[in-house]
Amino acid sequence: MATPPTEAQVREYMRTLSNWGRWGKDDELGTINLITPAKRAAAARLVKDGVSVTCARPWSTEITAETTVQGMRFMVDSGEGRDHDSNERILQRRGAAEFIGMVFHGYSITHIDTPAHYFWQGKMYNGRSANLITSREGAQVESVDLLRDGVVSRGVLLDVAALRGRWLEAGEGVMPDDLEAAEKAQGVRVEPGDILLIRTGYYARRLREPRNPGRDGSPASHVACMPWFRARDIAMLGTDTHNDVSPLTHPALGNVVHIVGLVGMGLWLIDNGNLEELAQACAERRRWEFLLTVAPLRLQHTTGSPVNPIALF
Amino acid sequence: MATPPTEAQVREYMRTLSNWGRWGKDDELGTINLITPAKRAAAARLVKDGVSVTCARPWSTEITAETTVQGMRFMVDSGEGRDHDSNERILQRRGAAEFIGMVFHGYSITHIDTPAHYFWQGKMYNGRSANLITSREGAQVESVDLLRDGVVSRGVLLDVAALRGRWLEAGEGVMPDDLEAAEKAQGVRVEPGDILLIRTGYYARRLREPRNPGRDGSPASHVACMPWFRARDIAMLGTDTHNDVSPLTHPALGNVVHIVGLVGMGLWLIDNGNLEELAQACAERRRWEFLLTVAPLRLQHTTGSPVNPIALF
Amino acid sequence: MATPPTEAQVREYMRTLSNWGRWGKDDELGTINLITPAKRAAAARLVKDGVSVTCARPWSTEITAETTVQGMRFMVDSGEGRDHDSNERILQRRGAAEFIGMVFHGYSITHIDTPAHYFWQGKMYNGRSANLITSREGAQVESVDLLRDGVVSRGVLLDVAALRGRWLEAGEGVMPDDLEAAEKAQGVRVEPGDILLIRTGYYARRLREPRNPGRDGSPASHVACMPWFRARDIAMLGTDTHNDVSPLTHPALGNVVHIVGLVGMGLWLIDNGNLEELAQACAERRRWEFLLTVAPLRLQHTTGSPVNPIALF
Amino acid sequence: MATPPTEAQVREYMRTLSNWGRWGKDDELGTINLITPAKRAAAARLVKDGVSVTCARPWSTEITAETTVQGMRFMVDSGEGRDHDSNERILQRRGAAEFIGMVFHGYSITHIDTPAHYFWQGKMYNGRSANLITSREGAQVESVDLLRDGVVSRGVLLDVAALRGRWLEAGEGVMPDDLEAAEKAQGVRVEPGDILLIRTGYYARRLREPRNPGRDGSPASHVACMPWFRARDIAMLGTDTHNDVSPLTHPALGNVVHIVGLVGMGLWLIDNGNLEELAQACAERRRWEFLLTVAPLRLQHTTGSPVNPIALF
Repeated sequence: MATPPTEAQVREYMRTLSNWGRWGKDDELGTINLITPAKRAAAARLVKDGVSVTCARPWSTEITAETTVQGMRFMVDSGEGRDHDSNERILQRRGAAEFIGMVFHGYSITHIDTPAHYFWQGKMYNGRSANLITSREGAQVESVDLLRDGVVSRGVLLDVAALRGRWLEAGEGVMPDDLEAAEKAQGVRVEPGDILLIRTGYYARRLREPRNPGRDGSPASHVACMPWFRARDIAMLGTDTHNDVSPLTHPALGNVVHIVGLVGMGLWLIDNGNLEELAQACAERRRWEFLLTVAPLRLQHTTGSPVNPIALF
Repeated sequence: MATPPTEAQVREYMRTLSNWGRWGKDDELGTINLITPAKRAAAARLVKDGVSVTCARPWSTEITAETTVQGMRFMVDSGEGRDHDSNERILQRRGAAEFIGMVFHGYSITHIDTPAHYFWQGKMYNGRSANLITSREGAQVESVDLLRDGVVSRGVLLDVAALRGRWLEAGEGVMPDDLEAAEKAQGVRVEPGDILLIRTGYYARRLREPRNPGRDGSPASHVACMPWFRARDIAMLGTDTHNDVSPLTHPALGNVVHIVGLVGMGLWLIDNGNLEELAQACAERRRWEFLLTVAPLRLQHTTGSPVNPIALF
Repeated sequence: MATPPTEAQVREYMRTLSNWGRWGKDDELGTINLITPAKRAAAARLVKDGVSVTCARPWSTEITAETTVQGMRFMVDSGEGRDHDSNERILQRRGAAEFIGMVFHGYSITHIDTPAHYFWQGKMYNGRSANLITSREGAQVESVDLLRDGVVSRGVLLDVAALRGRWLEAGEGVMPDDLEAAEKAQGVRVEPGDILLIRTGYYARRLREPRNPGRDGSPASHVACMPWFRARDIAMLGTDTHNDVSPLTHPALGNVVHIVGLVGMGLWLIDNGNLEELAQACAERRRWEFLLTVAPLRLQHTTGSPVNPIALF
Repeated sequence: MATPPTEAQVREYMRTLSNWGRWGKDDELGTINLITPAKRAAAARLVKDGVSVTCARPWSTEITAETTVQGMRFMVDSGEGRDHDSNERILQRRGAAEFIGMVFHGYSITHIDTPAHYFWQGKMYNGRSANLITSREGAQVESVDLLRDGVVSRGVLLDVAALRGRWLEAGEGVMPDDLEAAEKAQGVRVEPGDILLIRTGYYARRLREPRNPGRDGSPASHVACMPWFRARDIAMLGTDTHNDVSPLTHPALGNVVHIVGLVGMGLWLIDNGNLEELAQACAERRRWEFLLTVAPLRLQHTTGSPVNPIALF
């Protein structure tokens, strides 16, 4: 088992793993640059049986243990009474429709983080000032609409929970050794431009019992994996957690996977994924690679988007 | 040119084109049933060069001519001042994050309509009571999470605006003859399980000038196309309009494409698409078919979802 | 102790206590009609020492045991970073400002109920159809803006909790005998046009321990008091509860104080008041009457308003 | 006519008119300190005929020329269909209720500004850091709940529009001479602790024609009045405008009435008042003083509140 990096080593990651300037000083895409048309075409060739599988959790307005800001759904018009409405009234009413509202960041909604979501020493990815992300204007750079054409690539699932035969505990981090062991067990190798999905089993546990990652803790990829992610040049990281071990591994620094990943590497994240159905679909086929389509909403000036990533086998 | 149906004929469509009971009395999926794994696998085989293209319009909080309910984006935390915050304060602040809120139904946001969005004589698709869609509980049936695994199929674009060499005018409907002429011109044929996208040019016009479809009118597929859609057994219909001609072709009935499509046929819709980049990508390749992935958010009890449909060539 | 009314007797209240037609068939004000300018002027003459006291609970965005829909406060602009902003940037930023949002009905926010809030057999106060309160248009009648000039009258506090020397328990109703005993103990008599405030001690209890009235129960005025309210011709009823005993005294009918009061009598309610500081101010002065000003927001088409009723001694 | 102050003179106001430290270094109330119980009692003695009058504009969800953020009202439950609901269903449905949401700051909603709404050189009233007003926590000081017991005092209306016989134009400021002329014409004198209301006629104009103060301009009290307000020691200033002349009188400084008033003097403001009915009530009685009750909602951590100030004659 690799030794977790010290605080000083994590700070050093910000220099050694940095992608600042790698794709030019004006780049906002970060690791998304690693996905080429050829990569997408090759991913499409993985499709065999045409079964599609969600990687998202359901969204509701319920208050649960993990709720920070409650989701909202309010009907603008309903179907109630339409069986007795006059014809005149029916023509006045429009279709049933709703307002939906949410803070997708947090612990429960499957969503993308853009690099604008995080800061280090007043900077975000590629050296831009944190002051560009404002209350009034929103994300003036690194907005999620950069991904307007979707993130389509090979998805690879590394099922660390299956490897361990149990879910990872609160505070437990996935280590590089786990990733390599999973690669070996599954017969797959993570390559440049892949969207890497890592299953810790956290969501399986949360489906069984109420949990708040901030209060009750959570596993995640350990920051020790960051050099490995950089070496393999993954385009995006998604897990079934909020993507930082809780309690914090390096409390004086904060959420270090977010800091090193989003700020240092420009590595876009998928938080709070649901990899349960996906893991089953992979296991059934003994195949842990697939075409993955992540289609963020085209939200302007926004630091992420709720998503429903779709794997196609 | 086909003669548009009379009001009596449209009423008759509700019987002759009906899919009620076709997939069983408990069915909620409607025409989505037409997409099989084999269909998806075949669609994936269309992928050649790996270029992906959005079919969604950008979303913003701006009030425009077409706004009914303004979109909302409020920052829960920003990056302002982080370059001067104390380290203690930095650890208190979390990532930049926002609340987003919207009524996606309407005239501006690219979204899916589930069959629960519309009613006819107090009923929705497959004979269920409109009273199941309530202010308090939302859509108790026909909720968008039925599509949790995404809608992945062959997408076909029929570019009627290109065929005509101009955008369609307010009040002008795409007729079955147009669809067949486009098929012929493009060398493509719409088949069962396809997601049919029809470009009227409305969005091209709207990009040039402010327009409110309710007030200024809009083209759309004419209800006269419904028998054609039923004969071809399309799985989903998406256009660059709100999917009903405005002013109404049959004012005593209401939005007849919605009524016949959603209620009668269980035909799910994509409203307010953006087919501009797609049309260009198709024209460049002289190919109007592609793998299309529509990934609705997993909203519970909801009559639709904002989406960003992704075409992969 | 009076015997609580049977279900049949409560149904009979809808006829015997009815104010339908009392102020004309078009009336929407109900018992607010009982407040005359002379009544207000007399109430103002009660003012002696000029001390003002809130009757509202604080409002926050916290999720508590009693939350149904979380309150929302999102900053549109903040003060963060303004000490280092450039002068140019300072001129772009506007004042710190926020979005606030809430469902004021429920168990936690001090608010007014208009008669449009409740229904009985498809009708609301004065015989109007419940169908006038719609999802799309809101309250087309009985909207809170009817009270645009405020509700200003003599306020009278009957402190039943003080009389009992304890807070009332869940499921316990204030009975007419309690009201008369409190009148006697306090040396005050409730008269036409008064705003009657009744303290059960519920809010004192809730300040000490988390409680959800729907789940954990609540005291309130018992429906047995309705004939007494009608006989005394109070203009408005406010308590430190949500204004119906929980668990329900008459489960086959629902919230009977709301039904008899709002629907039958057109009696406007103040739910979820805070009578703690008020009770203390009254006790200190041995005076339970005061000038009370209730100033609803001028919300159009709305079934109530959050308020902060102010007592002036 | 007094000469408007130069930019240098306005800067000097921040020193000469400052109330920083006047009520102690921990004070947050600012000029609200000027309202004593004796002042309130005296104000109550002004009440003669018991007529109450609103000073607020109606609030709606309509998008108008002046909308920045649209108001929201969404029904959580309606009355639709209750005349045909089963009894079982009726017991499931609760009262008609709504979500309301708004950004009250801006140009259309009658609201209070707390001193936390504005900043000057990184500071707010009494020298506190602007960084205390944060996106995440809101107003950590100077929150509107400081006024939980209401602002109750003598209200005085100076009807400058009546004096001029016309509404003031965009860009036109009320000058100290106008105030004194109005005092003389009306036979009233503004005194310490008064809530001063100034009518420019702006709202009368806006009722006749759509206007956006930011784009079309607005009158207001000119910053030249600030020494007069300070000399008279008013407790609160309310007008029928957003309280700064537009276009700006001192564009290099910003909204100077807000800066000098909120930041320098700790003078709380009422923006976007409706003084039309009030002016008429005053003129009818030839009396421009009255008991005024301003009852902000008890919003925690908030820089203001929508209000409906009630004048009692």
